[in-house]
Amino acid sequence: MNVWQINEDSFDPKKLNVEETVYTIGNGYFGTRGAFEEGYLGATPATLLFGVFDNIPIGKEELANVPDWLRITLYVNDERFRLDRGKLLEFHRTLDMQRALLTRTVRWESPSGIRLKIDIERFASLADEHVGAIRYSVTIEELPEDMVVANVAIRAALNTAVGNYDTMHWETVDQGHDGELIWLQSQTRHSHVQLVQVMSFNTQTPGFRKDLIESDIAPAIRLQGRLAAGETITTEKIVVMYTSRDVPDPFPAAIRHLRKILETGNASDQPEKPTTAEDEGTKPASDKKIDPYLALRTKHEEAWHKFWEQADIIIEGDDKAQQAIRYNIYQLRISASSHDSRYSIAAKGLTGFGYRGHVFHDTEIFMLPFFIYEMPDIARNLLLYRYHLLPAARAKAEHNGYQGAQYPWESTLDGQEATPISIVHPESGELIPILNGHIELHITASIAYAVWQYWHVTADDEFMRDYGAEILLNTAKFWADRAKYNAERHEYEINDVIGPDEWHEHVNNNVYTNYMAKWNIQTALDILHWLHKTSPAKAQEMIRKLDLTDERLAYWRDVVEHMRIPQNEQTHVFEQFEGFFDLEHLDQEDYKGRTASYQAILGLNPVQQYQIIKQADVLMLLTVLREQFDLETKRANWDYYYPITDHDYGSSLTPALHVILACELGLVNTAYKLFMKGALVDLENPRGNSGEGIHDACCGAVWQAAVFGFAGLALTDEGFTTQPCLPDHWTRLAFKFFHKGERVSVDLRKQ
Amino acid sequence: MNVWQINEDSFDPKKLNVEETVYTIGNGYFGTRGAFEEGYLGATPATLLFGVFDNIPIGKEELANVPDWLRITLYVNDERFRLDRGKLLEFHRTLDMQRALLTRTVRWESPSGIRLKIDIERFASLADEHVGAIRYSVTIEELPEDMVVANVAIRAALNTAVGNYDTMHWETVDQGHDGELIWLQSQTRHSHVQLVQVMSFNTQTPGFRKDLIESDIAPAIRLQGRLAAGETITTEKIVVMYTSRDVPDPFPAAIRHLRKILETGNASDQPEKPTTAEDEGTKPASDKKIDPYLALRTKHEEAWHKFWEQADIIIEGDDKAQQAIRYNIYQLRISASSHDSRYSIAAKGLTGFGYRGHVFHDTEIFMLPFFIYEMPDIARNLLLYRYHLLPAARAKAEHNGYQGAQYPWESTLDGQEATPISIVHPESGELIPILNGHIELHITASIAYAVWQYWHVTADDEFMRDYGAEILLNTAKFWADRAKYNAERHEYEINDVIGPDEWHEHVNNNVYTNYMAKWNIQTALDILHWLHKTSPAKAQEMIRKLDLTDERLAYWRDVVEHMRIPQNEQTHVFEQFEGFFDLEHLDQEDYKGRTASYQAILGLNPVQQYQIIKQADVLMLLTVLREQFDLETKRANWDYYYPITDHDYGSSLTPALHVILACELGLVNTAYKLFMKGALVDLENPRGNSGEGIHDACCGAVWQAAVFGFAGLALTDEGFTTQPCLPDHWTRLAFKFFHKGERVSVDLRKQ
Repeated sequence: MNVWQINEDSFDPKKLNVEETVYTIGNGYFGTRGAFEEGYLGATPATLLFGVFDNIPIGKEELANVPDWLRITLYVNDERFRLDRGKLLEFHRTLDMQRALLTRTVRWESPSGIRLKIDIERFASLADEHVGAIRYSVTIEELPEDMVVANVAIRAALNTAVGNYDTMHWETVDQGHDGELIWLQSQTRHSHVQLVQVMSFNTQTPGFRKDLIESDIAPAIRLQGRLAAGETITTEKIVVMYTSRDVPDPFPAAIRHLRKILETGNASDQPEKPTTAEDEGTKPASDKKIDPYLALRTKHEEAWHKFWEQADIIIEGDDKAQQAIRYNIYQLRISASSHDSRYSIAAKGLTGFGYRGHVFHDTEIFMLPFFIYEMPDIARNLLLYRYHLLPAARAKAEHNGYQGAQYPWESTLDGQEATPISIVHPESGELIPILNGHIELHITASIAYAVWQYWHVTADDEFMRDYGAEILLNTAKFWADRAKYNAERHEYEINDVIGPDEWHEHVNNNVYTNYMAKWNIQTALDILHWLHKTSPAKAQEMIRKLDLTDERLAYWRDVVEHMRIPQNEQTHVFEQFEGFFDLEHLDQEDYKGRTASYQAILGLNPVQQYQIIKQADVLMLLTVLREQFDLETKRANWDYYYPITDHDYGSSLTPALHVILACELGLVNTAYKLFMKGALVDLENPRGNSGEGIHDACCGAVWQAAVFGFAGLALTDEGFTTQPCLPDHWTRLAFKFFHKGERVSVDLRKQ
Repeated sequence: MNVWQINEDSFDPKKLNVEETVYTIGNGYFGTRGAFEEGYLGATPATLLFGVFDNIPIGKEELANVPDWLRITLYVNDERFRLDRGKLLEFHRTLDMQRALLTRTVRWESPSGIRLKIDIERFASLADEHVGAIRYSVTIEELPEDMVVANVAIRAALNTAVGNYDTMHWETVDQGHDGELIWLQSQTRHSHVQLVQVMSFNTQTPGFRKDLIESDIAPAIRLQGRLAAGETITTEKIVVMYTSRDVPDPFPAAIRHLRKILETGNASDQPEKPTTAEDEGTKPASDKKIDPYLALRTKHEEAWHKFWEQADIIIEGDDKAQQAIRYNIYQLRISASSHDSRYSIAAKGLTGFGYRGHVFHDTEIFMLPFFIYEMPDIARNLLLYRYHLLPAARAKAEHNGYQGAQYPWESTLDGQEATPISIVHPESGELIPILNGHIELHITASIAYAVWQYWHVTADDEFMRDYGAEILLNTAKFWADRAKYNAERHEYEINDVIGPDEWHEHVNNNVYTNYMAKWNIQTALDILHWLHKTSPAKAQEMIRKLDLTDERLAYWRDVVEHMRIPQNEQTHVFEQFEGFFDLEHLDQEDYKGRTASYQAILGLNPVQQYQIIKQADVLMLLTVLREQFDLETKRANWDYYYPITDHDYGSSLTPALHVILACELGLVNTAYKLFMKGALVDLENPRGNSGEGIHDACCGAVWQAAVFGFAGLALTDEGFTTQPCLPDHWTRLAFKFFHKGERVSVDLRKQ
């Protein structure tokens, strides 16, 4: 097994959509699903651009699938190459994660008996984020006896007939050519984002004629010629994309960009050299012209090499785990922009239409630690996104009658609540109201926690002073106002919420929510204290801006001190929310062999009567704030909650996250099982929904499981400690991370 | 003014969508909006096929806009022809209704100074419903001084990048060519209808090369050559469409069909001859080959000639009215299939996306009379559509706890209720519940009434025996069960409904509903009596099938006798529903100059408190069943209801329908004003919503206004009478109609 590769050796039309998700390429500016160049009925080709949204008929907006840049169709003697026609002799697809190259090799016999070998390679340049490139080679392996040459036509197009499933987002504004470049200018139907895509399609194989095919619908470039048996044509399609979010006028920017690539390679300061022997063959030996494709690819590979040098996790003794953790890290990298803080990482990154490109607390709680420890510049941008949207969060709080800032459960570009108010039931067609936007509050504390964690790990005081403190203080102000004083109990309560376990709605005093709120207020008080010491002017500014009177701060301290946290004092088991312990026990033995979640089986309302939960709730608290709880408490709660969590069909978020606690409690076999469940959630698609996109939060949880779980990494005032808990067959676990600007290596080996 | 033509002499990009509706062509098998061949941002090209539906995200289904067959792009020396580039020197568009030809003549100067004349003609063959054809001619009028010839490239394509607004319905299954024909096979995404479109694109102008451009997205044929100043190329694009609703395998059917057209013309048994002198020029004098385009057009024109010979209404003395009534008749014709009884006429026919192709009582009450009197075979099919869907109507009644058959307010292919349960408010994004599918009941009586009217006019006893009686009895059974006995009043009541005036919801004893229900039950009793006399076996079958015991029939008679019909006995004014007279008076003086409906101005709930109504309700009853009411009653109710109806921004349905009563009451000026308001509802678009499609019910009402209103046509046992009430300036009103299988001419002339 090559632990840098994901491989597929057969073509199954039924798995089209799932494999499209799995074989996504991307660079954070755009993500392109692994659809085949030639196009199939039922395929879902998609390229989603970071932060490029358009309105939807119900709800707010979604990432708008742009005209497909992949399309290449091949005709040999008028016979069209399709995997579902003729005879498929051989099929291999490989995602090489080390170089972020997606390759496909097909050997195919046409209906009339022409045998071809087709080699395709594609990448989304990490070195030059506007660029996608495909190298497409066709070799005639064998011709029928009476045939001397075959006519070969290869057409590379931009395809506007795409949507997010049924929804079309773009209209063609104009189309044309500039020399041998074909360009397409499109506009989103409602949000009016401008997009320019420019394409070149070239070959150095002699004897091929080039035609430009102008079209508003599918502008294309066609290469046509003849090949004898044993001959090969190699072509390269290079596409550059710019939008009006990048530059005021994307048209000249895109044209110039592609011209420069074609003229100078990618202006690499290193000599261009093929990286493998195989590539030599594709360069005409006698020709010393720049090969723009190879130049682009070299820079792209260098960028990935640099990335992996920092962010790789090495697992020895377990190839499947090694391969899978790299896949999860690969997905995290391709989901995040290298520089843009106007948008953050969606629940499915840029890999599919699920959750419409909306940003959840998945980013802050699950994915952000990877970026904080491995790519702190990106982590900072992801937090700046939330800072920029503070005004919208304040407006949301105000709209709901509260002070401070309340972040939306689902967030897009303007920070207004983007959670749909209802969804259409896929079978009955009925509208089901969605409450999360109204009462799932804990995301506000998640963001505060993320700010603190970033600061704690990076020591980026400037960020905390200029941005972080304001988030912490505003969110604290919200919680202090949202919590209501219960005079009878002399406690503060947060009622009518949904906690992380979304199967129980309208609950009171959810432990996770209340504890995180309390933490949020306390941390804000600490940060205000720190500001007073380190930047008194900023402290004064905050006090003025947020009206932080002494009375208010005293009140905050009272809320912290008397926040209601339901817990059984004897057993130390937290009560997930008030009344949870009184709910019915569900005998899971009765549901053996089920293939759906308990919620789907029992129904939206009935499931609420049972002590059965979708995902970690109390246990998530004990993981996120793990330094605040003792082992005894952790064990008691684990023993209570672990068995009543739907690890198979509940949320994909928490199987891997549970690993951290499991390791602390020494439950290494359970930890390993949960880790692999998370690590393979898209590679093996046990939930059946990978077609809608990668479970990016799960990718983040898998990274945390390795680093905080199996390696047991913890930061201390002096540095860090590890507390390894490696599965039996793992012989080594190694990674690097940044701590306060210093790069640190961890290398845990078994004797 | 040419009273057979609709003309436009300038290009206004802002009116694109409205004019697309106005210039729709069609033949009942398909309708194609008047989008321009070359394509514009914001255009809504659409071709809708009779009964070809696909699912939608919210609600049931809609007519699925098929890949656009119009697309033709023209490049002269690489400059693309677009009305919004270069200089537009002249622009004319004409819909010739007599021949159902849409023509456009453009004189245009390209940015580099090449002057072109472009002549385009298109039609949807009425003689061969699978065929659409375009003749596209380009003449070089002038070249810049230094230029001798210009390169001309014309590309005819099928465009898959279309949707119903944002919603895409089709996926490409396959694409290819067959000789010089290009074909495209598509499939609806959810309902899995198969569609095959085959296209030819030819010229007889010498020196032009033809290229086939294969593409799943925009398959095309390109003609390329050179023209000197003064030279012309004339091309013809012919497209044939078949679906899996037509034949089990549409692919060979479509290919064969187009081959036959190209080989034999359209197998006309008449000698092919150009119909105008102008056309001679387009036929190469030396070439005696068949000209398929002209052959097709000749047959098409003959079919329209035959249609107009029967269905024309001649108005002399008023060119605007003459032109407009022909336009309304043209629209009725192109909306209905010549032979298919599996679907009926949608609210917007096949002309736009409004109301999603759903069928309302618009068809039976407003449009059907035209077909009954002019094209009874089509009328019969429209009623057979309802007969086929009786099982679904029975299921709807049963679902609601009633016996008999309750027809859905909105109907598509399977007869299940297709009214959306809610719509998204265009501004607030909120979901507004739609009650019509639940409580707007009167459509069930409309269908019964339509059955009776068809029989009354045609004397098609076989239809009544085999189909009509069963509809009448089933609907009567529904009403008898839906009406509830009020013991206190000793009356039957139908409560909690919406009447024709939809601004008042949840009303009790709506006069229109109750009276039509009573009429429906009485007519069913009469028909059962008739069956006993004329087909006793059928009578027995109905009695068995519907459990029509003597007790039940006695009960029906009691319901008829004691149905509550609220009416002021002194004034003879019916009370639209119980309590209507107690509602507040609305001072309309306060709203002078308004540009929206009273409902839009006052709000959905507030409007219900006022005596202000959307459309004829009591007056519709007095129109539909006009032989049952005396003139005094009509006058009293007119005087009451006419002033409180929103004729400007309420429903488009009733202005023209009011004409019949106005004529009976001798209010000829009012009648004329209302008639023109209806006749111009799409030609002048006063409501601003013609972009969504033609108001087909209004077209039907306009026809009724002329025939039943101004001519005062009424059938008698002996034949018919007229009671002319012509506007002052009309000198003649003439038309033909069928009565009991005989063709009758009416020719009313003023001295």
